[in-house]
Order: sequence, then structure tokens, then C-alpha cells
Amino acid sequence: MTRRTRVLRLPTAGPQDTAPLAAAIAAGDVDARSIVAIVGKTEGNGCVNDFTRGYATLALKLLLAESLNCPLAEIEKRVAIVMSGGTEGGLSPHLLIFCREEVSSPAPAGPRLAIGVGLTRPFKPEEIGRAAQIEDTATAVTLALRDAGISGPSDVHFVQIKCPLLTKERIEEAARRGAVTATADTYHSMALSRGASALGVALALGEIGEAPEEAVCKDWSLFSRVASTSAGVELLRNEIVVLGNATGWAGDLVIGHDVMSDAIDADAARRVLANLGGETVAVLAKAEASPTGEIRGRRHTMLDDSDIHSTRHARALVGGVLAGAIGDTMLYVSGGAEHQGPAGGGPIAIIGRV
Amino acid sequence: MTRRTRVLRLPTAGPQDTAPLAAAIAAGDVDARSIVAIVGKTEGNGCVNDFTRGYATLALKLLLAESLNCPLAEIEKRVAIVMSGGTEGGLSPHLLIFCREEVSSPAPAGPRLAIGVGLTRPFKPEEIGRAAQIEDTATAVTLALRDAGISGPSDVHFVQIKCPLLTKERIEEAARRGAVTATADTYHSMALSRGASALGVALALGEIGEAPEEAVCKDWSLFSRVASTSAGVELLRNEIVVLGNATGWAGDLVIGHDVMSDAIDADAARRVLANLGGETVAVLAKAEASPTGEIRGRRHTMLDDSDIHSTRHARALVGGVLAGAIGDTMLYVSGGAEHQGPAGGGPIAIIGRV
Amino acid sequence: MTRRTRVLRLPTAGPQDTAPLAAAIAAGDVDARSIVAIVGKTEGNGCVNDFTRGYATLALKLLLAESLNCPLAEIEKRVAIVMSGGTEGGLSPHLLIFCREEVSSPAPAGPRLAIGVGLTRPFKPEEIGRAAQIEDTATAVTLALRDAGISGPSDVHFVQIKCPLLTKERIEEAARRGAVTATADTYHSMALSRGASALGVALALGEIGEAPEEAVCKDWSLFSRVASTSAGVELLRNEIVVLGNATGWAGDLVIGHDVMSDAIDADAARRVLANLGGETVAVLAKAEASPTGEIRGRRHTMLDDSDIHSTRHARALVGGVLAGAIGDTMLYVSGGAEHQGPAGGGPIAIIGRV
Amino acid sequence: MTRRTRVLRLPTAGPQDTAPLAAAIAAGDVDARSIVAIVGKTEGNGCVNDFTRGYATLALKLLLAESLNCPLAEIEKRVAIVMSGGTEGGLSPHLLIFCREEVSSPAPAGPRLAIGVGLTRPFKPEEIGRAAQIEDTATAVTLALRDAGISGPSDVHFVQIKCPLLTKERIEEAARRGAVTATADTYHSMALSRGASALGVALALGEIGEAPEEAVCKDWSLFSRVASTSAGVELLRNEIVVLGNATGWAGDLVIGHDVMSDAIDADAARRVLANLGGETVAVLAKAEASPTGEIRGRRHTMLDDSDIHSTRHARALVGGVLAGAIGDTMLYVSGGAEHQGPAGGGPIAIIGRV
Repeated sequence: MTRRTRVLRLPTAGPQDTAPLAAAIAAGDVDARSIVAIVGKTEGNGCVNDFTRGYATLALKLLLAESLNCPLAEIEKRVAIVMSGGTEGGLSPHLLIFCREEVSSPAPAGPRLAIGVGLTRPFKPEEIGRAAQIEDTATAVTLALRDAGISGPSDVHFVQIKCPLLTKERIEEAARRGAVTATADTYHSMALSRGASALGVALALGEIGEAPEEAVCKDWSLFSRVASTSAGVELLRNEIVVLGNATGWAGDLVIGHDVMSDAIDADAARRVLANLGGETVAVLAKAEASPTGEIRGRRHTMLDDSDIHSTRHARALVGGVLAGAIGDTMLYVSGGAEHQGPAGGGPIAIIGRV
Repeated sequence: MTRRTRVLRLPTAGPQDTAPLAAAIAAGDVDARSIVAIVGKTEGNGCVNDFTRGYATLALKLLLAESLNCPLAEIEKRVAIVMSGGTEGGLSPHLLIFCREEVSSPAPAGPRLAIGVGLTRPFKPEEIGRAAQIEDTATAVTLALRDAGISGPSDVHFVQIKCPLLTKERIEEAARRGAVTATADTYHSMALSRGASALGVALALGEIGEAPEEAVCKDWSLFSRVASTSAGVELLRNEIVVLGNATGWAGDLVIGHDVMSDAIDADAARRVLANLGGETVAVLAKAEASPTGEIRGRRHTMLDDSDIHSTRHARALVGGVLAGAIGDTMLYVSGGAEHQGPAGGGPIAIIGRV
Repeated sequence: MTRRTRVLRLPTAGPQDTAPLAAAIAAGDVDARSIVAIVGKTEGNGCVNDFTRGYATLALKLLLAESLNCPLAEIEKRVAIVMSGGTEGGLSPHLLIFCREEVSSPAPAGPRLAIGVGLTRPFKPEEIGRAAQIEDTATAVTLALRDAGISGPSDVHFVQIKCPLLTKERIEEAARRGAVTATADTYHSMALSRGASALGVALALGEIGEAPEEAVCKDWSLFSRVASTSAGVELLRNEIVVLGNATGWAGDLVIGHDVMSDAIDADAARRVLANLGGETVAVLAKAEASPTGEIRGRRHTMLDDSDIHSTRHARALVGGVLAGAIGDTMLYVSGGAEHQGPAGGGPIAIIGRV
Repeated sequence: MTRRTRVLRLPTAGPQDTAPLAAAIAAGDVDARSIVAIVGKTEGNGCVNDFTRGYATLALKLLLAESLNCPLAEIEKRVAIVMSGGTEGGLSPHLLIFCREEVSSPAPAGPRLAIGVGLTRPFKPEEIGRAAQIEDTATAVTLALRDAGISGPSDVHFVQIKCPLLTKERIEEAARRGAVTATADTYHSMALSRGASALGVALALGEIGEAPEEAVCKDWSLFSRVASTSAGVELLRNEIVVLGNATGWAGDLVIGHDVMSDAIDADAARRVLANLGGETVAVLAKAEASPTGEIRGRRHTMLDDSDIHSTRHARALVGGVLAGAIGDTMLYVSGGAEHQGPAGGGPIAIIGRV
């Protein structure tokens, strides 16, 4: 038996819309047991009060629990579900369903899309955004690479991580034990957790030599070229999905990536497309407003806008840049790119069919 | 003496920022008397309660009145000032200063950027959005072409029009005379006025054979490939600025245009760039959310978003598409493209240096 | 056995938060079988892209299905769930759980809070916002009154209705049969459905003599003083919950109401409080921006704000007015008050403990 | 000759609308030379990118410069202009024109509305939000009291201060001199400047015994019951307007105040109204979202809302509370109440006619 990664890109009519996936399962096109990760874009604002992520996740869990005839809580252990809110500009809501199947055909000679998953232990509140999170993430990424049979860092093209954040309750629980968390600001804890997780990826892949905790959300010269991290309230561990190319995998999918040096670096996408050739199956990228307030010397207004959050502007912008280069708006563009690509830029990965 | 069009693209630090223009005038780089039009992007929302347009316009009038030593009211007659609100995504606030100068050097052999200005008579409220506005605009565009010495429609590349809208007072004034306006909805009157003005351009340039008033904001198969229209409360006439290429003009600027068939049609921009060659001096484009709710078959969420107006999403998106293709975010991207390019698309014009 | 209406007002920590209700059920404080209606406020924008209503509804259905050991679809038939999005200003998210219990104690001499529920038949798309919806709603309200044992219209104090809206699919289905719907604008269909439903209430209670369909969202002189209607995509019938006082009911709750003549009419709330006396258990009110653009001769800016929808401003305002009068922010204030109270005003009902 | 304070409350049709004031000047109703302060509400968001404040200020300066036949820059020295953005909920845009006139009639026996103005020296960037700003403000407030002839702190009812903020340029200018500013975050500098200014008022009036700079925006137990402070980029000094009652002043106006203990404390307004009696001429209040996340034990969602800034929610809420109590929406409700009233509450002052 040979492993094979399948990726379904399914449009959704709203955060609650699981009908396309239900249809694929009902038609026997997808075996629900093979689903290891779901990554999606939903219609919310992608900020603090974005309930579309939770709504979409609940709807997916319900479908999978029914399909697998298991309790809801079981699904969380089987499938990493990462919802990114915000379909600003032209971004089109959709789900990427990652399946790990076993097929009888032998693997082709060349490398194919490989997927590995990993988990850290649960973090204590005071570990979030600090050395413990960086280091345990690095360890778990290394294990996930091994799980995927990816031979080395140069074959890794995207590492999606879902990481925890601090809540008032968690901060207080730590305080009762005499522990002090990295921040008392729950919103800022999202950035710290994303940043520490991204540094963990960079450390695991040898992109940086060391990742001191003092660098988290401070030293932007340290970053990963493949990390994409997203903080959520519903977990205390880091959940890791590694995408790369490896021999020994079947199927017709491969993945490539590059780094956008700034938000309008369409050339990065064009380079990935040129390398991959073939049909584009999925696009994953990160976006953020340049912290200098400028893009190639031109002032932008994203950071001074009190009506629309800068992450919303950034997703709309990068979505437009990529849609212009790729000719499609069904793109996973996620905001908040701390240590994920250079300041103001971010990674872009494309899965294509050979 | 030979005519020459100069274009200055000046960044602004806010809607009130006239310092760069003041400096250019003080340095003798620009003669305030030569300024015939100012087109700019400001930081507002570009919708009903966007006061940044009025603020920028007032600040510019103050500067020019001081420079020319004339009353504020005089400036309105001398200079067409068109401010477009909304710098969503990465769009960078700036002013385009159009000067019509007289130089002693002879005109070069080839055509150069020519600018013509025109005015209709003041419209009665009941004429806005109707045949009178379409036809008088067509006549004034024809005269503005002649003013610019542009030999024919194929040499016209952008027609910027500022047109009136209906207010409660104007609707009531008409009612007292027994006249009924095209709409009682002041917001909708902006679309009707923009649409009728764009059809007037299309008629003048022979892009369409006839423009019945029933077609305004209804029959989207009728449109101009070069019109860019913008409604404002401060005038009752249509003010027209025609940009094209013509022999007999000096300088080193030329203009080209194309039509984006949808919001992500970056190829249209690439074609214009390829035709022009040389340095890009200014970019002018229109944006709108596809009324079908889809872009190339993918659902977009712009029209269902009650937090961010669809015109804001559309500017961010088209700004990203063009910034990715052109490598610059200092772009004049304006929303509300009724009969300005096909539904969901719009004109794109670029001024370049030969 | 005597009937008794119980009302639990439960705070929520988010749209997904069913923990307080689950705890009440687990503690035996509430019998899940007795729940006939749930009315709540959630954190969304209360406009087109408000997914918090659906999320809260799904979470409640899951809890009740588990508690009652029945399928999700069964819950829709047992319980009317009406979620109103938008907790602007100080409004505090919460649920009102209405239970209809049987108790062995005899009914007290005086009238007590009575609850009746009703359903119309499913409407065809072309009936929404028209005479059929008005008339069938009137009939169903009359039956719901009888169900509650309320002796006459003067004892009715609040009629909450959940009504359908038009979608593109529904409009097209009608068109295939040659039928024309009342509007082609899905957003506007929400107003028409709310308006026709409110007129149905007014007709049933004799508040107006007749309710011609031409009056829907046109003739604001026709309105109900107790109707509160809310449109949702998930149903095709009108679901009706009538609250009033009636003899033959046990318990210690009573209800009163009045009409706010405009958005700042705090006196209306004070009159209800004075009549009821005792502890306040729940407050239900409707809010809308005065369509004249003025409140008591002062201009408001709600209708010209392209950043914040007028219904959001209106809820914040009425929430403040009522919180100042009542001393509590846990108020059900819902937007969109077509034919529900006079233009710019709306009904206010309070449930109190005797 | 006797001094007399006049207050005109003028509605505006937009930030640029100076017509009502121009008409009052033209009619001889107001002598432009007597205007010492203008306080107003404009339609913007009241946050970082609120350009309506600057627009209104520029329009007023233009009118006054023309009326007084003096340069624009002169107006800044003559008149304290404080614009507060944000007319959320029902708040009605308006201007309060404060005139200090000389009349021949003798002063009445009782105290009347007195107005005093003051100025600190310009602050260095590193002094903003620190002891120097606190102490110099206290000194200037004391002098403004003397200017107004107010006999003691108990006769002071509102102290409006316009204070500077930090910009990148100012922070860098300090850095070049080796000085470190209180914050590197320009947005946060607004809060620090408002807070330090409010503590200066509290110190001057003996409301607190000492005001250490460590307390600024940290120790909320220290606050003034009459301070209302507002930060703006256009000045480096603190401009102070003191309103109180004093003998020796003519006219028929008096002022009273109280403190709202939380955002829904309508009783505070009712107490002021009861004390004053007579016609209400102007209402001035501060609003903020309770930093605990609760109002009287009920959760609010203002601090978690990424679509609408908490200051906007707070103004809408307090505007509703006061409109319900006073019966008018033409209220000056300003956001950002650091050390101005207790946490979550704020001062409320009313000017009435005897």
C-alpha cells in the first residue's frame, strides 16, 4: 500500500455550508476516515469578534461526527480544522480538505505532495509566546516531517499551525500559581503565540540558528519562509500540518512555495507557478500591513484606519495581487504574519497537479 | 508657442495636505495659473459620509486662491477638482496635478498627451440621470476633444467627469415646479448621474450608437471604455476633462488605455504598459463589485457585507490587482463604474513618459 | 393541572454559549420538554452577513436535541427560536427561555403571564410581503391568542414573529411558475415580510380596520403597538409567539407594554415599569432610525452613515435610552420596526414579577 | 461694564457648515470679536482617521478670519476650537459658541455662568503624559479660574482642555536630543496626554492631593469630576476653557454638573437638571466603555468589537442614556475619559437659563 495526499477545494455558500463536503462523502468521492486536515476561509472579520470560524468548525464537526458515527469531541482529535476569517476584496469562501489515503498503486518515481501532522503537549498559559512554545513546536515540526516522510527542510513548502491564545481565565489560573504570562492583553497574546509558533518552524527547518524568546514579535529579521500560524481559543496545544514533497507518495499533486517580499510582490507567485506548471489546485498565503507604513516607498493608510482593521485591508490587497497573477479569487489568504516571511511580506504556497 | 501637458503626481500626508503642491509652486516648478485639473485619492470611505473629499478640495482651493491672489469662488471656475475617497488595501493617497503650459519649443513629430476641458450648462434636477444629461454631456465631450486638438475618438484614452447629484432640496425645488426627478433617493441619484454621464461619453465617442435614457443603470451592455465619472454635491453642471494623445502638443508624456473585463483582469494593465513602454507617471482606473456576485465563477462576498461597503472592497481588490501588475500602489482607483467598462470591470488608463 | 409560564433570562458569553441553559437543565431547574420559545440577542451586526444568529440557533438546537434525545430537525418543530443580532452600545448578549409548564397548584385569582404559539402554512415566494401573509398571520395570531387563553386584544402585550424572506432561489422558483414576487431585492424582502407580518398582528388585534397589501412598507400610519417581527432565511412559515396576561395561568409573572413614540421616549418605559411594579424579569423593544432624519427636530446622522448601518445606531440609541430608565443593559432591543409602532418609534414590553 | 457669557447652540448640516454662525454674525446677533471658544460635535469616527474635526476647524477659522479681517493663523490665538468627532446613535452635530461680552447692565445678585481661558507653555515631546504636563496644566487651570473670577473649586463645573499628542516626528526630535518620550505609540500618547491633563485639573481643584506621573492611565482611583480633555495634533500647549458660576457676571445662564458613576447613570443627569431648573442650553458629557467589560454586572461587547471602536459604542450608549433623561439629542458627548470621572463613568455638565 502507498500513501497518497488528496486535496479537495470546495466552495461554500456560508460558514455553515457543509453540503459540498457532505455530497463528496455521500458520493464516495471522499472517505471521511481519510480526512486529516481542513483549512478554510470564512466570511467573518478575522478579528476578535469573528464567530464565523467557530460556526464553520462546529458545522464541519457535526458532519464528520455523523459520517464517522462518533461523538463530536472525537473529531477534534482526528482532524486539524483551521478556519481563517476574512474574505475581503474578492476572496472567495472555500474549504481545502486534506485526505491521507492508502492506494494499491505503487508510488511514482518523482516526489509527490506529502502531508504530516503533529501535536505538541498542552502549554501552560505562562508558556505561550515563550521559549517552551518555540522549542516544543520545533520538536513537533521535526516529528511531523518524519511522519510525512519528507527527507529534509528544502522539501517543506508550507507549515500550517493552529496555536492557543490567552484568555482572562487562563491568565488568572497562572496567576493563582504565581506564574506570570507573557502578556496580560488577550489580543496581543494571539500575536505572541503566532510569532513563537512561526519561530519554532524556522528553528526546526534550520531557517534560523536560534530563536530566543526575546525575539518574539520584536526582531523581525528572524522569520520562517513557510510558516503560517493561526491562534484560536479552543485548544492549548499547537496542532501542526506539514505540506511538502516526498518520494514514496502516490497521486498527481505537488507543492511549491516562495516568499512575497512585500504585499504587492506578484513575482513571487509567478515564480511558484512557473516552477510547478500544470493546473493550480490550491493557493495558501499570508498577508499583513507593512509596519513601516509604506509599501515600496508609498504611504499606505491601513494602520491608521479606525473603521477597517489593518488585517482586513492586507488580506484584500494580497488577495488582489495574487488573483491578478493567478487568475482566480479562491485563495487562502490569512492575516497576521508575525515571523512568517519578512515584515510586510509573507509566504505563498501553491499546490498543483503534475 | 506650443501647448504642453504636465502631470505631477504628489503624495499627500492627509486630505488637508497641500504642502507638496505649495512647495512645487514656491519653487517655480509649477505655475499655478497653468493648473487646469486636479484629480486625487483621499482617505475617506468614498461613500455618502465621506468628508475627506470636501476637506481636500477646500484645502486646495485655499492654496490656489492664495497663489493666484483671487477669491475662493474663482478657483472653481478655473480648475476642475475631482477627489475620489477611499484608499482601501494598499492604495496611496495622492494628487495628480494637470497643467496646460505654453512652451516655446516646437511640438515633436509624434502625438503627445493632450488635455481638453469642457462644461455643460447647469442641469435642472429633473434632467439628472436622463436624456438631457446624456446628450449635453456628449456635446461637451465633443467640444473638449476639439479644445484638446484630439483628432478622433481612437486618440481619447480617459474622460474624467464630475457630475451633480440630487439633494432633498433639489428634488423639492423641482416638485414645486411640477417636475418629477428620475429618483427620490439621493444616493441612487449619484449612480444615475454617473451612468448618464458615462453614456454621454460613449455616445460622443461613437462607442454606442444611441443612449436611450431607459438604459441608464439598467442596460449594462452599453458602456464607454474610457469614461470615469464621479458625482458630487457641489455643482450642477458636468465638468469634463478629456485626456488623449494629439499632435501639436509638446512634452514627453503619452497616454494609453484598455478595459479590464473583470476586477482581476491584470492583463489589461499589462497590455497598456507594454504599448506605452517607458516610465509610468500616473494610473487611473475604475472598480466595482461584479453585480452577479461572482468573479470568474467564484462567489465573492462584497455585496452581502453590511460592515464594509462593496465599493470599498472593490477598490481594495482592483488596487491589489493593479499594484501587482505595475509594482506601485500610488494608483487612482475610483469606485462606482456604472456604464464605465463592462459590468464588474472598468477602464484602466496609464500616462507614461516616452 | 394548571398552566404556568416560566421565563429564564440567561447571560451568554458568546453566540455558541449554551452552558447556562445546559446547567439549568442538568440541575432540574428547567425541563427541556417545557421550552416553547427562545428569544435572544447575539453579538453580530444584525444585518445581511450576521452569522451569529445561525450559530446561536445551531448551538441551542444541539443542546436541546441532546437533552430531549431527538434529532436536530425535531427541535425546529418544537421550539420557536428567534435570535436578534446586534448588541451595540451597552446591550448585553442573553437568552430568554420561555417555558410552558404544568403545575398542580391552582391558578391565582388575577391574570398571569400567558404564552401562546402559532404557525401559518408555508408561504409561496410570491405571497411574502403581500395580502396572503398579512391575512394568514392574522388568523394564526387569533389562534395563538386562543391557545394562550387570552380573553381579548387588550390583554396582549407582545407578539414576536419569525417570518421568511426571499432568496434568489425562491424568486427564481416562483418565476418558473410564472409568478412574480413582491420584490427582486432579497434584502428588501426582509422589510416587506416583517411589515406584512406586523400588519397581520395589527389586523388580528383590531388595531387597524384593514391592512391592504399596498400599505406594506408605504403607509406608516398603519401599525401594531405590540408586534415585533424578524425575518430569517431558515423558514417559509410565520412562527408566532403571543405574550399576554390571562386568568387560569399560575406563576408570579405578568407583562405590560407601551409604545415609544420616538427613539428617546424613555417615558414609555417608565409608564410600563410604574404599572407593573415589582422586579423586572425581561425587557423587549424595537428600534429604528427615524426615517425623517430627525428626532424631535434635531438632525441625526444614522441614515447617511456608510460605515455603521442605521439599524446598529438605532439599537445602540434605544438600548441607552432604556438602560438609563430601567438601570439594566440586559435588554432585547431588535432593529427593523416596519409597522411596529409609529415611524421612528416602537413597542416596549416588560415582564415583571408580581 | 460687566462681563457676560453667551452660549449659542447651533445645529450643523455637516462638518463644513458654518452658515448658522455666519448668519448670527451677519445679523449682529454675535460679535465675532467676543468669541473665545467653540466646542462642537462632528460626524467622523472620533478615532485616528477622523478628518471631520480638522475640516470643521478649518471652516470655522475661515469664517472667523473673514469676519475679523485677520489672517487664519491669528484665529488660533484668539479662539479655542475643540471639535469632538462621533455622532453615534442619535447624537446631533452642533456647535457651542462661547462668547465673552461686555454689557452695560450691572451684574445680578446671584452667580452666573463665567468663562475663563488659559494656556500652558508649549510642551516638549518628552513632557507629554508626564509630571510637567500635569503640573503646568494645574497652574494654568488656577490662572483660568482667576481669569473667570470664579471664587473656588466648588464653583467650577466643567474644564475643557485641548492637549497635544506625540507624532513620529516629535518622538524622533526628542530622540535626537537624547530624550525618551512617555510612549512610542502615537495613539497611546493621546490617552496619556488626556490623562495627564485631567489629573492636572484634579490637582488644581483639590480633587486629589497629589498626581504622580506613575498614576497616568494606571491608577483609575485618581480622577477629576469636571475635566473633559481631548488630544489633537495641531498644538503643543494645553488650551484650557473653564466653565463655572461666579458673581460679577451678567446674563441669565448658570451651569451645574455631576458625575455619572457608570455609562447608564441617568440619575446624575436628572440631579443636575433638578438643581438647575429652567431651560437647558447645552449639555456636555464624557463617555467610555467600562474597562471591566461589564456594566452593573452585565457583560458588554464594546471592547471585543473589531468592527466598531469601543469609543463609538460608548458615545452612542451615553448619548441614549442622556437623551432619554433630557429629551434632546443635541448633546456634546465626547469619548476617551481617562481620569475624567470614575472608570466607565464620566462628568456631565449642563448649562441652563435661570
